[in-house]
Amino acid sequence: MTQLPFLRLSLPRQIPLCSPARSFFHTTAALQAVQASKKNQLTMATVNTKTGKVVDRTVLDSMLRRRLFYTPSFDIYGGVSGLYDYGPPGTALLNNIVDLWRKHFVLEEDMLEVDCTMLTPHEVLKTSGHVDKFADWMCKDPKTGEIFRADHLVEEVLEARLKGDKEARGQKVVVDEEKEAKKKKKAKDAKAVKLDDALVKEYEEILAQIDNFDGTQLEEIIAKHDIRNPTTDGNLLPPVAFNLMFQTSIGPSSNMPGYLRPETAQGQFLNFQKLLEFNQQSMPFASASIGKSFRNEISPRAGLLRVREFLMAEIEHYVDPEGGKKHHRFEEVKDIEMAFLNRNVQLSGCTKTEKMTIGKAVETGMVDNETLGYFIARIQLFLLKLGVDPNKLRFRQHMANEMAHYAADCWDAELLTSYGWIECVGCADRSAYDLTVHKNKTGAPLVVREPRAEPLKIEEWQVDLDKKKFGPRFKKDGKAVAAAVEALSQELREKLAIDLEKNGKIEVDVEGVGSGKVELDQDIVKIEKRTRVENVREYTPNVIEPSFGIGRILYSMIEHVYWAREEDEARGVLSFPPAIAPTKVLIVPLSTHASFRPLLQQLMTKLRRMGISNRVDDSSASIGKRYARNDELGTPFGITVDFQSVKDNTFTLRDRDTTKQVRASEDEILQAIKSLVDGEKTWEDIRKELPEFTGQEVD
Amino acid sequence: MTQLPFLRLSLPRQIPLCSPARSFFHTTAALQAVQASKKNQLTMATVNTKTGKVVDRTVLDSMLRRRLFYTPSFDIYGGVSGLYDYGPPGTALLNNIVDLWRKHFVLEEDMLEVDCTMLTPHEVLKTSGHVDKFADWMCKDPKTGEIFRADHLVEEVLEARLKGDKEARGQKVVVDEEKEAKKKKKAKDAKAVKLDDALVKEYEEILAQIDNFDGTQLEEIIAKHDIRNPTTDGNLLPPVAFNLMFQTSIGPSSNMPGYLRPETAQGQFLNFQKLLEFNQQSMPFASASIGKSFRNEISPRAGLLRVREFLMAEIEHYVDPEGGKKHHRFEEVKDIEMAFLNRNVQLSGCTKTEKMTIGKAVETGMVDNETLGYFIARIQLFLLKLGVDPNKLRFRQHMANEMAHYAADCWDAELLTSYGWIECVGCADRSAYDLTVHKNKTGAPLVVREPRAEPLKIEEWQVDLDKKKFGPRFKKDGKAVAAAVEALSQELREKLAIDLEKNGKIEVDVEGVGSGKVELDQDIVKIEKRTRVENVREYTPNVIEPSFGIGRILYSMIEHVYWAREEDEARGVLSFPPAIAPTKVLIVPLSTHASFRPLLQQLMTKLRRMGISNRVDDSSASIGKRYARNDELGTPFGITVDFQSVKDNTFTLRDRDTTKQVRASEDEILQAIKSLVDGEKTWEDIRKELPEFTGQEVD
Repeated sequence: MTQLPFLRLSLPRQIPLCSPARSFFHTTAALQAVQASKKNQLTMATVNTKTGKVVDRTVLDSMLRRRLFYTPSFDIYGGVSGLYDYGPPGTALLNNIVDLWRKHFVLEEDMLEVDCTMLTPHEVLKTSGHVDKFADWMCKDPKTGEIFRADHLVEEVLEARLKGDKEARGQKVVVDEEKEAKKKKKAKDAKAVKLDDALVKEYEEILAQIDNFDGTQLEEIIAKHDIRNPTTDGNLLPPVAFNLMFQTSIGPSSNMPGYLRPETAQGQFLNFQKLLEFNQQSMPFASASIGKSFRNEISPRAGLLRVREFLMAEIEHYVDPEGGKKHHRFEEVKDIEMAFLNRNVQLSGCTKTEKMTIGKAVETGMVDNETLGYFIARIQLFLLKLGVDPNKLRFRQHMANEMAHYAADCWDAELLTSYGWIECVGCADRSAYDLTVHKNKTGAPLVVREPRAEPLKIEEWQVDLDKKKFGPRFKKDGKAVAAAVEALSQELREKLAIDLEKNGKIEVDVEGVGSGKVELDQDIVKIEKRTRVENVREYTPNVIEPSFGIGRILYSMIEHVYWAREEDEARGVLSFPPAIAPTKVLIVPLSTHASFRPLLQQLMTKLRRMGISNRVDDSSASIGKRYARNDELGTPFGITVDFQSVKDNTFTLRDRDTTKQVRASEDEILQAIKSLVDGEKTWEDIRKELPEFTGQEVD
Repeated sequence: MTQLPFLRLSLPRQIPLCSPARSFFHTTAALQAVQASKKNQLTMATVNTKTGKVVDRTVLDSMLRRRLFYTPSFDIYGGVSGLYDYGPPGTALLNNIVDLWRKHFVLEEDMLEVDCTMLTPHEVLKTSGHVDKFADWMCKDPKTGEIFRADHLVEEVLEARLKGDKEARGQKVVVDEEKEAKKKKKAKDAKAVKLDDALVKEYEEILAQIDNFDGTQLEEIIAKHDIRNPTTDGNLLPPVAFNLMFQTSIGPSSNMPGYLRPETAQGQFLNFQKLLEFNQQSMPFASASIGKSFRNEISPRAGLLRVREFLMAEIEHYVDPEGGKKHHRFEEVKDIEMAFLNRNVQLSGCTKTEKMTIGKAVETGMVDNETLGYFIARIQLFLLKLGVDPNKLRFRQHMANEMAHYAADCWDAELLTSYGWIECVGCADRSAYDLTVHKNKTGAPLVVREPRAEPLKIEEWQVDLDKKKFGPRFKKDGKAVAAAVEALSQELREKLAIDLEKNGKIEVDVEGVGSGKVELDQDIVKIEKRTRVENVREYTPNVIEPSFGIGRILYSMIEHVYWAREEDEARGVLSFPPAIAPTKVLIVPLSTHASFRPLLQQLMTKLRRMGISNRVDDSSASIGKRYARNDELGTPFGITVDFQSVKDNTFTLRDRDTTKQVRASEDEILQAIKSLVDGEKTWEDIRKELPEFTGQEVD
């Protein structure tokens, strides 16, 4: 269950700023505080930090679809909810994010990247716990056949009743448009019915804890509060667990059930032994994997944030559990400041983040260890490189009851969007859990063996059996008796040594042999305290797991870099950093005159040779319209080819964000673009170096 | 069925050089010629062209697994046949191939790359033909439950009988070790039983056509020749079709069956309309996609060549079917020479390839059109960049009965390996098939509409119905009658116009109305020849589809670049071109002395900043052993750090293939590496520029 955090998130995880965390308040006052602050939070989420202006998600969404960043899969067949295709700009963006991820993590740290299959046999996911526990609760309407995700249903019905209550009391109702839009169209509108104060309180408390109920509890709530199909008012069957893995069958016979992996981690764990060998037995090291994973959501919503097929990038960093999990490059990151929302703050009912360096966070013990801290800092650096707004990034620590029992600590990188705080990266210390379960199941030595610098001397009670006499005496029971003796604890051995000395014989429990007790004389058994020397240390490494939901990062980041031109609200701009922009350069000829063609070809070829993606737009649209289109595509630079260019091979270079232009020779322009794309220079640098141009931007 | 060619290939497709193609010989003599030449071909396949030495696949395979290029998935759980994981060098190689592919095709030609989901609903693959036709035939043993792929079984049993016959005749038996090894271990060895000459001939003819039989024919052969379970001799059930797609269910109810895609093409076709819009309605253009596809093989064999989950890269180039399918960049490739094995040569019973420029091939009509020819040439350029041996590459044309009925022409790029000629890239002109079937099914306008330069004037017979009289006259049948009239062909209209003139009435067939014939008077219908003007041309583009099996290319290419050092057969080398080598540079310190560490760090950081992947090996192994390990990993360059380096910051640079070294300053060494990796210079260039070093390579 590596990605437990990804299991249910986005909407339920909207912890409002500085008010009780949803899962933990028990007073109506606290809840009301949350509801009031929620509106503020959502407002903040949709304000572009740089422009200070509100951005409209509906407008953004329609722009993203129009520009084919993404589109519902199988649209001409009516689509399938939770499945999206990325179009050309979306795919390029995705590829560039993956590329940066690979450079930032894999190449930078010599990680061992692997590519494992998505098809996974039943047994592996049984061992990992996914077969039994990777599930949501669903309710079926036996009459209509409709299926509801139980927690979502309870939430929808109770919220509607609370809304009706407010109306009846004449209070103002704050409408969450997103939720309204997602409601089944036929659903009956909430009636304005006043509820008992006690009932209101009970509903609010249920909603506050909606993420924490199991099937039995959901069943009780549904029965007690008479929750039915909101459309037909029909009764529902009790909730049943619905496993979120897509099941299939491998091979022609039906005797090998399998699943599509719900995460990339398992493939990495299973190869641990071979990877350690590849790494020449040297610890610590990390494996990494980038690939699609699958979750059969009951009712996907929230666009790209909750989909059934998605790209993940996961790192499994293997570390010696002894010695405090130090990291040799922690020094490099220790002064990085970040926004933390720790467990205790959440428990106290507040969601205000605290700024602190990661060095301090580890030193004070808030973050469990250096290795975990190192990756948390590296995750922040990565997200900022992508263009994430630092004011909309926080690291939230998992509550004790939110983490798996074996986890030592877990932090999520959350990005603030119009859907609330979205968990985009999880970073967990998973202890030795994963390697241990697979080792126990298969017997494979998923362990590290290393020579001890100093041999370890262990004083212990050892038992010797006289094999010559032992065999003939016990015959077919010999093996069972020997195994029982071997399994005796040190405490028991000490006690038995005294018995043996005193009585000349001992009695040992051996299940299934005779009466279950076996007598051993001193001529057949000897127990002595001796010193054993251990030259090799064997241990199961702990795993620190940074796990990235690439699609979520992509979408949240787009919200952060989106803004509209002051002069025209309809002119959207996506200010991607040049390194990840889908296309780096737009080449715009001012005329379709034949004399322009060789220049266009020459620019394209040279840019391509430099590895810089570019497009020519020689359509008949006005130059302003062509640039506006590319602002929406997030193309950071534009080269305008005009009649002057034909004469003297000079060009103008336009910056997307400022719309300012400079003019220079071809060589200078190409060099400027290269240094901008490589991140060596900023537009401000270029403006100082090359003469400004204020000519042709018409329209 | 885009990837029909990938459906069954490798082994059955081993067409021996200059002897009848397996599917087409009808004489025993021809077959014997094939069998004789087969041995020669396999020998040629395993000789490294550069060294002239035979390479041993068993040795190569064990090296690839030891170095973790790939490994069976879920190995510690016993593995699942047909599923492999790529380890660190394999993954890096795969990524580099994909990267090069993207540069060579997508970036170079401004293709529109998309990323579509693997999960695909039933209806889409029903329309494409996969649900009905993407299947192999399998036979079940009702007693043991064993399942056999029917054609493989017939092949195995008949070959065993022929072998027994040869033994009985005292002839020498050529053993195909691969096949022997793959046979079920318990299978009874062929008995030395002499067969009738006629029977031998019949068996040989069956084997020659084994790829072409359908289920009924396989059933007849199995019955007639009493083919049974080779292990138990038990009778088998008749062959049934087994669909090769992995089935699953999307969403919580079971009413949306889906499959894992068997190819990436369908997602591209479905988005055609949006992509055309994105491309600003401009034709021709191409979409492209890189991603995993899935085939539930009945009995996977041949390692990485026939797997159940594999990486594909596919291009769909949309072209106007009128005007001869010209390509505006054909001029750039027309002089490229390639080895063709055309349809007629195969029909004549020969497999000798013909060298010809692609320009000539298109000119003579052997390759159907320029666009197809352009991509064939580009495919060759791509494969050669990867390090494919040009002597082991050919383009084989599909036979007429091998292609889908709608295909205009199809060529496979085949690479010669120790498994025979392997189809690695298919390049087909699929006509308008795919867009048409989806358009017909969904009604979506998967067409191009373009204004005509000259309006088109069409003289045609037009039928007018007097609506006022027509409605009251036919009432509820009106729609059916109007539709039947609308559907009348031009020929019929002409004939009816004469009838109408002559008789004042006509009779029209209308199924389901009255007697099936309807009479129309001249007061209700009018038929006239008129001129219609069409200003917009609407057409369904044709699709040229280059489709790459990346895993197959990777494996075949590895066989081509593998060789062993003359002085030591156990010292394998993989001579990957620098651009695709998993790691570019090995940094080897001559001592573990602390004074070396800053130098190592400095080299690593600088190389990384240049985007050049590198690894330090500071293990205690001898320098020779460390280089030998990296020869096996295909690392093209090595930097040795010695005591001289500590003094003057000079280093030696070693070339993997020649093991020669040069010595120069840090800057010069790094610059040399960059130009080598970028492909701007060769090792020969560097040797001329920098002084040779003959010092420290000790073993």
